[in-house]
Amino acid sequence: MTGNELMTGDIVDSNSAYIASTLRDAGFSVTNMSTVGDKLAQLVAEITRLSESHDVLLVNGGLGPTEDDLSAQALADAMGVRVREHPDARSHLESFCRIRAIQLSPANLKQALLPESADVLANPVGTAVGFATTFKACRVFCTPGVPSEMKRMLQEQVLPALDQRYPQRQRAIRRRMRVFGYGESSLQQFLQDSFSDWPATIEVGFRASMPMLELKLQAASLSQESLLDEYAQKVRELLGAHLVTEDARALPEVLLDLAREHSVKLTAAESCTGGKISAALTSVSGASDVFEAGFVTYANHIKQQILDVPEQVLSQKGAVSEDVVRAMLTGALKRSGAKIGVAVSGIAGPSGGTAEKPVGTVWLAWGSRKDMRAAAFLIPGSRARFQEWVTAMALDLMRRFIMQDDSAPNYFKERKVS
Amino acid sequence: MTGNELMTGDIVDSNSAYIASTLRDAGFSVTNMSTVGDKLAQLVAEITRLSESHDVLLVNGGLGPTEDDLSAQALADAMGVRVREHPDARSHLESFCRIRAIQLSPANLKQALLPESADVLANPVGTAVGFATTFKACRVFCTPGVPSEMKRMLQEQVLPALDQRYPQRQRAIRRRMRVFGYGESSLQQFLQDSFSDWPATIEVGFRASMPMLELKLQAASLSQESLLDEYAQKVRELLGAHLVTEDARALPEVLLDLAREHSVKLTAAESCTGGKISAALTSVSGASDVFEAGFVTYANHIKQQILDVPEQVLSQKGAVSEDVVRAMLTGALKRSGAKIGVAVSGIAGPSGGTAEKPVGTVWLAWGSRKDMRAAAFLIPGSRARFQEWVTAMALDLMRRFIMQDDSAPNYFKERKVS
Repeated sequence: MTGNELMTGDIVDSNSAYIASTLRDAGFSVTNMSTVGDKLAQLVAEITRLSESHDVLLVNGGLGPTEDDLSAQALADAMGVRVREHPDARSHLESFCRIRAIQLSPANLKQALLPESADVLANPVGTAVGFATTFKACRVFCTPGVPSEMKRMLQEQVLPALDQRYPQRQRAIRRRMRVFGYGESSLQQFLQDSFSDWPATIEVGFRASMPMLELKLQAASLSQESLLDEYAQKVRELLGAHLVTEDARALPEVLLDLAREHSVKLTAAESCTGGKISAALTSVSGASDVFEAGFVTYANHIKQQILDVPEQVLSQKGAVSEDVVRAMLTGALKRSGAKIGVAVSGIAGPSGGTAEKPVGTVWLAWGSRKDMRAAAFLIPGSRARFQEWVTAMALDLMRRFIMQDDSAPNYFKERKVS
Repeated sequence: MTGNELMTGDIVDSNSAYIASTLRDAGFSVTNMSTVGDKLAQLVAEITRLSESHDVLLVNGGLGPTEDDLSAQALADAMGVRVREHPDARSHLESFCRIRAIQLSPANLKQALLPESADVLANPVGTAVGFATTFKACRVFCTPGVPSEMKRMLQEQVLPALDQRYPQRQRAIRRRMRVFGYGESSLQQFLQDSFSDWPATIEVGFRASMPMLELKLQAASLSQESLLDEYAQKVRELLGAHLVTEDARALPEVLLDLAREHSVKLTAAESCTGGKISAALTSVSGASDVFEAGFVTYANHIKQQILDVPEQVLSQKGAVSEDVVRAMLTGALKRSGAKIGVAVSGIAGPSGGTAEKPVGTVWLAWGSRKDMRAAAFLIPGSRARFQEWVTAMALDLMRRFIMQDDSAPNYFKERKVS
């Protein structure tokens, strides 16, 4: 990784993790990641050092038009060759600018200067020209620092080249499951308690994709596929409705798809989450099919006026109570015409807690007018964490309601208080 | 940086950026960041290499209780010394567990094994024991990988030790300003166009803190402070209301504080932002003083029923129109009793655009019943970007309204369409 903006900490480097996980999934192992600033001598030394000790080196960043962009020069210096204008690189720059009706600047032309004998890597989404070359016994790929450009080049150019170079490598196979309701340690414990015969060749991994947890089952090679599928199926059965999806969708998207399949509309009446449930649903394109109205009733008199929560219930039971969330949901369903919804009222903190209802207490009501459920939970932690978890639980409870799954989710066991 | 979870790309390393920017701000320069997995031989080689070429080495991670946690052993091996149980480390572990009434496990005791002659670095928030030692001419600090533990140890232990070790170093001074309405390149251009005499000793830097932009003015040492302040003041005057804050508050927090000072309550009627304005405001603790109600009126019939937008206006002008957002805001102000508010209706995309109203078109109305303004904008880009920008503009327009600042923000020039 190259770039002064990384050395000063001005940006968090997410490229490394993307590159590492992509290469790992493709059957390669990353043994060293190194970051240096835009200094020629240091880049030359680092490229030399890493090329001597590895089969493949991926250099990221430093392909732009400014004086700070030094990757081509550094690689040429390390190899003891010159940079020269590469015809393919120049024609990429010319056509990129022509299509977009922009002027090709002299600074841009610098981007066509590559080490002698380098092969150009196409960049469909930017001016930066990628290239590959061989230094000592190491194949070196230089890719742009802009994440969207790097991703395209990695997938479309670097991976196919590596594939061809190392056709015999072992490629792991894996099954990914997105789970809601278990944390990493509780799910690990649950799997350990449930299987006495877990095969040593199936590796279990976890990745936080908040608020969900991604569970990954992995075998070292295709020869293990039937065993992998056998255990994946056992895990699916064990997880039940905790398994939200096996694709890349997030919780709001899964819920919206499910509601669409069942032709039901959704609504939300929010106090302590303050709009986050509505915002999560409407962040998904096409949400309007299913979600037409949300109510952010932060103050008590608004709960009364907008959702017809009786004043008496508010004053007698308090805003954070079963009767209030039930009345909020009834009002929201009536006002919106939705069939299914959720209502939440709680104490997000950091202030506002009492001995009876400490910070982190929340009442949820969910379901339909005919079949309405309610429960209280205690969600410890910061205000942000509380709002995130309550939002996710609200979405998950609607999802389970539509699925007509009446099994108790793990968070009932861990967090339900009444 | 150590850890297999970094080498596999399972987590994005945000510690590096935090450490680098903290050290930079304290007057140190980071020249190499290197990440390796939990392999003893590799750790020993990397520690040796980096210690030979640097004055200070910070090792992050590998202080936990498991077999994978190898930092103490690796450093001892590199130095050619043994690890031994350190009394201060053991008493830290014992008291940490005693206070929390947890059992000290044999695995935890491994955390007290440090290289001979190491100095313990206190960890107030975790079991991992940090330590410092001198290897060759390099001072080496080993810190925990858990971000919250690393941050405390860096601030409370490592920085003071470095301060004492390098009292004579030059410390840069800086002024930070959080700006809304300019992108990095447009603000850079604006500053260039406005100053012909910008002093070479005042460095200008930018950091994206979406949707705001942080502008940083920096001088190399205290001797430049009066010049720095002189130019900071000129920049303030130039920015006017684009300067949102010079502290760490985000836009919603600044708006809420301002509304509180002026004793006005706020509301939001949202179509295309789907709850994000309400969610942004209620993510701030204490928002309920100022924000009591928000309306997510995604469907037309809901705009009618909840906010009394006349059906005729909807059918004649369309949902994305000046008349509709004005009617939405009027309804929201009436229903909520708030004095000031915002209403938005637009086409977030990716579908739903027309030739006349392409994807990215949005109408906003803001202000009070007596003094209501409205404008349309075109915000290109993805759905997520559109929603983020419209939310930020909505907050900013309310902020400017309360400030009674009638100057045109830069985004009127760049994005206003009617």
